[in-house]
Amino acid sequence: MQLLKDKIRTDAKIVENRIIQVDNFLNHQLDITLFNEIGKEFKRRFSSKEVTKIVTIETSGIAIACIAAQYFNNVPVVFAKKHAGLNMNQDVYEAKVYSYTKDQEYTIKISKEFLCPNDKVLIIDDFLASGSALMGLISLLSQSGAEISGAGIVIEKTFQEGRKLIQEKGIQLESLAIIDSIRDGQVFFK
Amino acid sequence: MQLLKDKIRTDAKIVENRIIQVDNFLNHQLDITLFNEIGKEFKRRFSSKEVTKIVTIETSGIAIACIAAQYFNNVPVVFAKKHAGLNMNQDVYEAKVYSYTKDQEYTIKISKEFLCPNDKVLIIDDFLASGSALMGLISLLSQSGAEISGAGIVIEKTFQEGRKLIQEKGIQLESLAIIDSIRDGQVFFK
Repeated sequence: MQLLKDKIRTDAKIVENRIIQVDNFLNHQLDITLFNEIGKEFKRRFSSKEVTKIVTIETSGIAIACIAAQYFNNVPVVFAKKHAGLNMNQDVYEAKVYSYTKDQEYTIKISKEFLCPNDKVLIIDDFLASGSALMGLISLLSQSGAEISGAGIVIEKTFQEGRKLIQEKGIQLESLAIIDSIRDGQVFFK
Repeated sequence: MQLLKDKIRTDAKIVENRIIQVDNFLNHQLDITLFNEIGKEFKRRFSSKEVTKIVTIETSGIAIACIAAQYFNNVPVVFAKKHAGLNMNQDVYEAKVYSYTKDQEYTIKISKEFLCPNDKVLIIDDFLASGSALMGLISLLSQSGAEISGAGIVIEKTFQEGRKLIQEKGIQLESLAIIDSIRDGQVFFK
């Protein structure tokens, strides 16, 4: 997706040839016009799939998933919680996820009432790197018996192992910008 | 806003005549059609105000703010972080916020680069009760010198002290459903 790649080239901050900081448009300040283009592109790539629900994970995934849902007949969005409040229903599906950007392990949760075997779920998230968050979501969905229609990712770091893990599950994986390498503070796309 | 009140009456779970659990459409599963109506209603209520940015806070506020931004010329959304990652810029505005639903104090943060004195900011959040989160956001905005165009809230519990605190600041406060009291498991609107 050219618009996204251009945005990464002009606006991302590269730290230590390893970290792509996109706080300017994706993770802290959110570019709603870009998110609409992202939503349209997900629809195009998953146009052959039935989608009854979009599932994502706190925090940045939520914004992208909500805008994208508008291109999938306004299907409901359910987000896995990393920081469940005291009021949360205790009858949940849960999985462990390790966050490298926070150096912390989370238990992610979705209330059982919001996933059922009839659901055909599109997973959406901002980043794919190690694949830990995505594998956690896939575990929650498998526990519920819901069908997985696909996984849509905004930015993938293909030099980490995430893609392999997802594809081994036979899931259609679509990443809108695939980063092949980072050298001398510059991003190279696949 | 009648549609929202109807949704609360039919879908909210009332716990101990005190807690309104709206995980079904606002805090865990997200009703994108309803969010679009909410966005339109915020636009109607703040139609006389200039808005260059929408500011909200993790987590549930993000979804509402992003959909609403589409009715304000796709202005950028900036969300205050409760759980900043290791990669976050350290040059931030910050404030303390107490969360009753998590019984925990947070330091909320916004990178200085995303707020400036020229900004005219609409604050959007899901709930107003004690006003702690909203007062935290107002503190961040005051530190930046940004102008506050108003505060739009989805559900207000008017029997707590939040409204008074915000109005003392001279800020236009618009809540789309104002809950006057909860008795015998039933919600009464103002």
